[in-house]
Amino acid sequence: MNDMHIEHPYLVFLGDAHDQLAAKTADGVAFWRREWCVGQLRLPGCNADTGLPDMTVSEATAKGARSLIVGVVNAGGVLPESWTDTIVEALEAGMDVASGLHMRIADVHAVRETAERLGRRLFDVRHPTRDFATGKGTRRTGKRLLTVGTDCSTGKMYTCLAMEKEMRARGMKADFRATGQTGIFIAGGGVSVDAVVADFISGSVEWLTPDNDPDHWDLIEGQGSLFHASYAGVTLGLIHGSQPDAMVLCHEPTRANMRGLPDAPLPPLDLCIRANVEAAHLTNPDCRMVGVAVNTSALDEGEARDYLGAVETETGLPCVDPVRDGVAGLVDAVS
Amino acid sequence: MNDMHIEHPYLVFLGDAHDQLAAKTADGVAFWRREWCVGQLRLPGCNADTGLPDMTVSEATAKGARSLIVGVVNAGGVLPESWTDTIVEALEAGMDVASGLHMRIADVHAVRETAERLGRRLFDVRHPTRDFATGKGTRRTGKRLLTVGTDCSTGKMYTCLAMEKEMRARGMKADFRATGQTGIFIAGGGVSVDAVVADFISGSVEWLTPDNDPDHWDLIEGQGSLFHASYAGVTLGLIHGSQPDAMVLCHEPTRANMRGLPDAPLPPLDLCIRANVEAAHLTNPDCRMVGVAVNTSALDEGEARDYLGAVETETGLPCVDPVRDGVAGLVDAVS
Repeated sequence: MNDMHIEHPYLVFLGDAHDQLAAKTADGVAFWRREWCVGQLRLPGCNADTGLPDMTVSEATAKGARSLIVGVVNAGGVLPESWTDTIVEALEAGMDVASGLHMRIADVHAVRETAERLGRRLFDVRHPTRDFATGKGTRRTGKRLLTVGTDCSTGKMYTCLAMEKEMRARGMKADFRATGQTGIFIAGGGVSVDAVVADFISGSVEWLTPDNDPDHWDLIEGQGSLFHASYAGVTLGLIHGSQPDAMVLCHEPTRANMRGLPDAPLPPLDLCIRANVEAAHLTNPDCRMVGVAVNTSALDEGEARDYLGAVETETGLPCVDPVRDGVAGLVDAVS
Repeated sequence: MNDMHIEHPYLVFLGDAHDQLAAKTADGVAFWRREWCVGQLRLPGCNADTGLPDMTVSEATAKGARSLIVGVVNAGGVLPESWTDTIVEALEAGMDVASGLHMRIADVHAVRETAERLGRRLFDVRHPTRDFATGKGTRRTGKRLLTVGTDCSTGKMYTCLAMEKEMRARGMKADFRATGQTGIFIAGGGVSVDAVVADFISGSVEWLTPDNDPDHWDLIEGQGSLFHASYAGVTLGLIHGSQPDAMVLCHEPTRANMRGLPDAPLPPLDLCIRANVEAAHLTNPDCRMVGVAVNTSALDEGEARDYLGAVETETGLPCVDPVRDGVAGLVDAVS
């Protein structure tokens, strides 16, 4: 991640993904950066489809592709030989390769050797390779919004990206800042903050969101939850390093327990809001929670309206489902 | 740190430490584990002294030393050749070597080669090498006490070790659990939790403090502070992974600002107590703050008594200076 900047256009690699969920990262890239993607490359047996046109490495090269994006989960820890062949072919065709796999493609001999020989770049986006300073908490210029959650996987990335789109449509200066693998492909760079050494969590986020124009918004992708027993340390460092002016709480109302922790209930919204705001005040005493973003996909339209209305009443904050409603209400709250 | 267990007796290496502060780690080992230390080894120019008898590698070997402890800070990032020579000599004499340096002694060719050839073990205690699972928050048997702080370097390790000594003197089952380099030498093992990958902070502490006898106390060395903008993520993961039954707040009353952050004031004690207890309730709803340990070394006896009394009144908790008073009052609070 040495000053990572993944060049687009992208060719999105799906391998032989056994279902659509295995291609979740590729789906995110195709959805949010359709204009950066020339197509998808699927191997025999692939059961996923991003909707991008299918093409070979040479067809993608002819369309200007600069990077192959490995946005898929492989079963087991070993890279299939068919995947390695495609990655090497892409390097030989002139592309860089960026991977979101847990294993490092740079550890695969044929891949590393080819990249070194040809001067191509390999990005293992789950594995930060640059060093960071420890966080300092010094106030920076520009404005920052961080999404936080009652739990993991509650729409924090989606909400940031929707707000980026809405702000840009209004002529505001706004940049999505990625802290996870899918977000990094979508932004073309970022920090996989959960993979940083513990002492440098807040420092890595300070690096990611430096001084900027006074009217510029960094929209920072949150991770985990202050109430998740596995990952709360990451979340707290992210809050302190972001020194957010504003936060949006992301929530999924039908979840029975914290993700991966069957016995852990979700926190009440009011407690979650208070705890996040108190934590944020350490590095930005003016930080406030400006709204709630709810993923109501498991509810029908009537239930969703009732739920969103109830949360507005309970919290006194604008409450939207970014998919059903858009995020104009959240952008209004910081404009 | 592959199931790290550093064998004692120790020979404590001071190198050519330019002052006593550079040998702070060695001092801690000599103070808390005098009975494990056969002596110290000092090179020409050394200005530090732990009070242990001076001896050569061969003299220490004759007295049964099993490990050389590199408990000293070296200036700059390069290991002096005189240090390498001593480390190699110790390996050749049959000792393992454990280092608290930032740089890895295992990266020094002559050291690694000698250790591999002779089957000795090298411990770079600042660098965890084993993998951890993510934290689960599942309740474990046994009792746990965690020291937390208003800031870094407020006596968290000292307080734990003093409580271990007091509990053992009372016939209680108690083990100090180390989370930093000096503590690891003192315990003969542990996890340098600030060097763990961010996703695994709480998981590493769960590994460090597994199920135990119902009447056994783990006394867990805290790190950082929930109110330190650089390191609070480490602290929160430590709290969640410890699932403490009890916490002791450690404080240094003359500090003008958070360590390393000139513009950051220390948190008020009441806010600090509430925030730590609320955080702990996520994985142990019965956790309570049982006392305050204050380092009053900068105050005279009268000032210290006044200050400790004022904190007892303010917090309603027993408040001691572990050095002036011992920690009987803290052990009473959990007995």
